[in-house]
Amino acid sequence: MAAEMDLPGIPDKRIDFYFDFSSPYSYIASEWVEALAARHARTVRWHAILLGATFQAAELKSPVSHPIKREYSMLDFERSALFEGVPLTMPEPFPIPTQNAARIFWWLHAQDPQRATAWSHHGLRAYFTRGINLSDNEALKQLAAEFGLAPADAEAVWGDPAWKLKLKQANEQAVACGVFGAPFFMIDGEPFWGNDRRAQMAQWLEKGPFQGPMSRL
Amino acid sequence: MAAEMDLPGIPDKRIDFYFDFSSPYSYIASEWVEALAARHARTVRWHAILLGATFQAAELKSPVSHPIKREYSMLDFERSALFEGVPLTMPEPFPIPTQNAARIFWWLHAQDPQRATAWSHHGLRAYFTRGINLSDNEALKQLAAEFGLAPADAEAVWGDPAWKLKLKQANEQAVACGVFGAPFFMIDGEPFWGNDRRAQMAQWLEKGPFQGPMSRL
Repeated sequence: MAAEMDLPGIPDKRIDFYFDFSSPYSYIASEWVEALAARHARTVRWHAILLGATFQAAELKSPVSHPIKREYSMLDFERSALFEGVPLTMPEPFPIPTQNAARIFWWLHAQDPQRATAWSHHGLRAYFTRGINLSDNEALKQLAAEFGLAPADAEAVWGDPAWKLKLKQANEQAVACGVFGAPFFMIDGEPFWGNDRRAQMAQWLEKGPFQGPMSRL
Repeated sequence: MAAEMDLPGIPDKRIDFYFDFSSPYSYIASEWVEALAARHARTVRWHAILLGATFQAAELKSPVSHPIKREYSMLDFERSALFEGVPLTMPEPFPIPTQNAARIFWWLHAQDPQRATAWSHHGLRAYFTRGINLSDNEALKQLAAEFGLAPADAEAVWGDPAWKLKLKQANEQAVACGVFGAPFFMIDGEPFWGNDRRAQMAQWLEKGPFQGPMSRL
């Protein structure tokens, strides 16, 4: 856990990254956030959350629940993935409930945050490149086995009230921090929402708060 | 009107740009869209619309009608303007109804689209840099006078059923094209939503439809 701990007297050098296993923009961002952080001597603290919980808290609905916006979003998911150089095949069904994958995340996180990060990549890539349905318990047990977990352990985790509570608390913590969508990033208290804020985040990491007009044209 | 007409046998070389006079992201985009188009030998066809009409058609609400999202949006408007090098001072009140400014747009557009474009810049800059309330009829008459219009003519235009109908038709045309927010762009039938899609639009204009992974990391 050393990489995640704040050293005494050393300013916080983290990027907090909130994602949902069912969010295509979160998946795309998950493929660049570590490299962006590393270029600026930061570490990433990953937070698996449920978008449904944040939408409910903010009285929002998923963009794909609106027919007109869904059509555009489906196009934009694939175009944005191509633009970022990330392989993506939109899965069916979509979206899916992801609480079980997220509970495994928090269980792993309590032991070793880097292993939880590896599980995040494993789950996101399985859903968004191979169409593995993370809401299907048999498929999720198989995925856990691929990752080196005993399927029975995985199943025990997602049925365990302790990990249900931990995920609920993670959602509440996210909402308390102002998270209302995913991917959502916090850098030095500054919120950034969306895969499309990467360029602004890079600038922020390099130069700090934006001041005065900076022509990009 | 020559710049807006399609020449026989020449492919359509336009960018359709849908905006609302009350939309900060539309204002930011209005400051770069002409330069982007010019670099790719395109012209811009401007469409003043009412976001309220597109939200209603798509069963959406304005992001700033959600308290949690409003707080983030207010921050993101200013940060995005700084990032793009566009001066912005968020006005009060915000948002505002903009049908009268839009009706003047369409009246000018029928005479000379470039004059309508100039009016768009005039109105957007007045609201977003000087806080001129475009929904206040006296302020709007004063703004029309600055632009070289007779205030009485401006007032007659926005009260005229013909220009009310024209704006209604423009909203309906936008909705029929899949527009559900602003700024919204159509390039060769491809929809792009948001000030933050500029980089993708530039790539599209340069190389056409995205194919295969293109690493940007």
